[in-house]
Amino acid sequence: METMNEIGPTHRRRGDALRRAILDAALELLGMVGYGQLTMEGVAARAGTGKAALYRRWPSREELVADALGDALPSPAAVPVSGEVRDDVLALLECMRTAFTSTHGAAFQAVKADGGPGAGLLHSVVQQRVVEPCERLVLDALRRGAERGQVRPDAVTTKMARVGPAMVIHHALTDGSGMSDDYLASIVDDVVLPLVRP
Amino acid sequence: METMNEIGPTHRRRGDALRRAILDAALELLGMVGYGQLTMEGVAARAGTGKAALYRRWPSREELVADALGDALPSPAAVPVSGEVRDDVLALLECMRTAFTSTHGAAFQAVKADGGPGAGLLHSVVQQRVVEPCERLVLDALRRGAERGQVRPDAVTTKMARVGPAMVIHHALTDGSGMSDDYLASIVDDVVLPLVRP
Repeated sequence: METMNEIGPTHRRRGDALRRAILDAALELLGMVGYGQLTMEGVAARAGTGKAALYRRWPSREELVADALGDALPSPAAVPVSGEVRDDVLALLECMRTAFTSTHGAAFQAVKADGGPGAGLLHSVVQQRVVEPCERLVLDALRRGAERGQVRPDAVTTKMARVGPAMVIHHALTDGSGMSDDYLASIVDDVVLPLVRP
Repeated sequence: METMNEIGPTHRRRGDALRRAILDAALELLGMVGYGQLTMEGVAARAGTGKAALYRRWPSREELVADALGDALPSPAAVPVSGEVRDDVLALLECMRTAFTSTHGAAFQAVKADGGPGAGLLHSVVQQRVVEPCERLVLDALRRGAERGQVRPDAVTTKMARVGPAMVIHHALTDGSGMSDDYLASIVDDVVLPLVRP
């Protein structure tokens, strides 16, 4: 352990810290200039490093921005799993709500306002890093619920797993106001659970 | 009738035909240059009329474009009403699907690709002219269903009326492929109806 601390992990920490500094610089710059005006040079300068350090990690500006935005979103994989289908589904819908709230931050707003390719990239980052994983995890929660007899086996389908997320997306797109805890709970209690209960 | 044909309606038809020509010109121009580059002068020239004819009808470019895009979308109010809650809800979800399909047209694609204010305008046109009316009409269909005993009275809520539309929006946003008739029918049969049935 002592030896590793002296050599390996120290280097690795430095690498992680640099990666973090680059992603933070990219996010800050996105918030200031939008996607259209962001350059690898600008991010490197802001992070106090060289372009080579960026290109070693991200082959293109698009992949750097996707990681910078993605890192600012909550991670569905980190949502804790309980023994109750209600709690599991609710926690995943809360993760989606947090993701949509996160996109009100300066970097996300600048990318959206900028429109064009940046807006499409943002949409796919939210989709791939939050919406799709959450839907897969809701399906897993339904499957575990079926094993415990809380869910009908024939309700363990991608369609049923989509209903809760679809309601959260609908609210995020159509209602300017925040999504209350009560509304989230009512999606689970009045819509998702009645559809999948034995 | 003869007299009216000679005076009133003839004038009105001319007015409608001019309005139609202006909206068509605006749509064509949107498809060619996007929202950012579209001008009232350009639309007037393409429609073979003057700027004054446009400003008499639309106080701003934004309102002209909203009407041009909105007119290219299906009208929820035109969806026929039957005596069956299943048919009524399905017809309204089909109207939404047609609306999302319509936005694959050149004008919509150009406005989306253009990003920025045009993309926001497009979102609100689809929202105001299709999504919101469809949801209100689904709620009406549930209400009529409740009167006939096909729907639980306590399921006649805006939340329940949103479930079907939310599933259609979800598909339009997350799945590149077309929405099949079978999928639409399964939203009604496996999701909406089981939630509202007595």
